[in-house]
Amino acid sequence: MSLLVVGSVALDSVETPFGKRDDALGGSATFFSTAASLFAPVQLVAVVGEDFPAEHVEFLRARNIDLAGLTRAPGKTFRWKGSYTYELNEAHTLDTQLNVFASFAPELPAAYQKARWLFLGNIDPVLQGRVLDQVQKPQLVAADTMNFWIGGKKADLLRTLERVDLLFVNDAEARELAGESNIVKAARAIQHMGPKRVCIKRGEYGAMLFDHDHVCAAPALPLAEVFDPTGAGDSFAGGFMGHVAAAGNLEPTTLRQALAVGTVVASFTVEQFSLDRLRTVTREQVRARFDEFRKLIHIDELA
Amino acid sequence: MSLLVVGSVALDSVETPFGKRDDALGGSATFFSTAASLFAPVQLVAVVGEDFPAEHVEFLRARNIDLAGLTRAPGKTFRWKGSYTYELNEAHTLDTQLNVFASFAPELPAAYQKARWLFLGNIDPVLQGRVLDQVQKPQLVAADTMNFWIGGKKADLLRTLERVDLLFVNDAEARELAGESNIVKAARAIQHMGPKRVCIKRGEYGAMLFDHDHVCAAPALPLAEVFDPTGAGDSFAGGFMGHVAAAGNLEPTTLRQALAVGTVVASFTVEQFSLDRLRTVTREQVRARFDEFRKLIHIDELA
Repeated sequence: MSLLVVGSVALDSVETPFGKRDDALGGSATFFSTAASLFAPVQLVAVVGEDFPAEHVEFLRARNIDLAGLTRAPGKTFRWKGSYTYELNEAHTLDTQLNVFASFAPELPAAYQKARWLFLGNIDPVLQGRVLDQVQKPQLVAADTMNFWIGGKKADLLRTLERVDLLFVNDAEARELAGESNIVKAARAIQHMGPKRVCIKRGEYGAMLFDHDHVCAAPALPLAEVFDPTGAGDSFAGGFMGHVAAAGNLEPTTLRQALAVGTVVASFTVEQFSLDRLRTVTREQVRARFDEFRKLIHIDELA
Repeated sequence: MSLLVVGSVALDSVETPFGKRDDALGGSATFFSTAASLFAPVQLVAVVGEDFPAEHVEFLRARNIDLAGLTRAPGKTFRWKGSYTYELNEAHTLDTQLNVFASFAPELPAAYQKARWLFLGNIDPVLQGRVLDQVQKPQLVAADTMNFWIGGKKADLLRTLERVDLLFVNDAEARELAGESNIVKAARAIQHMGPKRVCIKRGEYGAMLFDHDHVCAAPALPLAEVFDPTGAGDSFAGGFMGHVAAAGNLEPTTLRQALAVGTVVASFTVEQFSLDRLRTVTREQVRARFDEFRKLIHIDELA
């Protein structure tokens, strides 16, 4: 039931109204795999530079994340610098240094090629396609993407999407990809591009899952303390996919629970800077908050 | 179990990307009472001008809305003109002609003074206070307000809020009223101003209810067709309060159901222009969509 993730491992410098942090462990694959490893064994494919601190490698290894696919290349690690205003829903990118990530060409170790659950992090859709060429027959291919690829590599993205079963995007990305402002119509249009399951992430407003003809909507947890939204979307996807891998099936019940697990995991992520909260949260704490979440959304039937 | 509403009855001219309509029946009290009358008897206090069409009066009367408090004053009816872009979440006011509404001084007929459930629509907080002076002992005093009063009559609004049990506001209004960007902290701050219950409306993103120490969050229904958001918030409040009046209690179960009923009623409102859909929707249709809504948000517990 291994879960394979391909994406970025980075060093993030982030500033929010509540403080700042330089060169913290970040990257989509880092948040994803840290979250997912709460629930299932994870295999990671990513590249870091010579400057990547050994302690970060040790942290990932200690999470029971298989690092056979983590390569160290000559040069510096991918760096992202961003800030948030009090409108915490949107990151403002101040600087991006791709460094070793610029020539990232994911090669899957032989043991990874039979992965049953696959998550293609937000990388060039051409590279996402090359990963797909290397896997045998996953039960679920999930992917993330962003406006950069939607705007700049649309044809490549559409080719990759034909091979994707579940797409994670935020509202704005869904609207841009579909060229449709209504979010329901946008999701339906994306389903026609390939992925029969579309998960729309809406930050503090929650998430929706369009699973063939079924729809599930979940609000986010109302949080009094939000320090740093970095990694919320990736840890949401990690929690979602980790739950699916642990359950071992794609039943509607499982996917709806996955939506809630992702919501809960992301709610922990944003409570502190960077990975600080996610790295200490336990499966029991996730479970307790999952139960709280069910109470939060509970509505009795009418008499 | 009568539900008393004080607010505006207006003629709206609205333009959305899907069409336009001139001088349609509108106003906060109209949407509220049309929605609430699906569930409970409603008493309406409002003012219209000499030009107010008799057919609108007949429509309201046919809904079993008590019009003893609807006065006709010399002059023209309150008119609002607005437009929406594809970002349907926010109205752009093009013109407001207060007309007879400018000198509105709500006088409650004797029979209204014992109302058990009260909704103070979005009017001058001084007038809201004068209504409160005229009622005997309602079981619940609910109120709406807006940025115009938060910015321009804050002291009066705060005096009124001390006498309010349940405040309906949208996100931006809650943030502005509390001077706090975090929505949970904003709600808690408003609870300290008086209303122990705060309902935050978030348009297409749903709604949240802060009821003393308890919180309930509900997404909106994902709608493929949204024609005109005018009146969504007022019909949400009408559905909410109508359900409470019909249930006759303030139990957490009732209030959570009310949040869902309001959500469902608003979802009908926005599907067509103006009151077109709300005026034809039946209690059975609301109930059927309420059941759909519960399925939409359903998450099974973890094994």
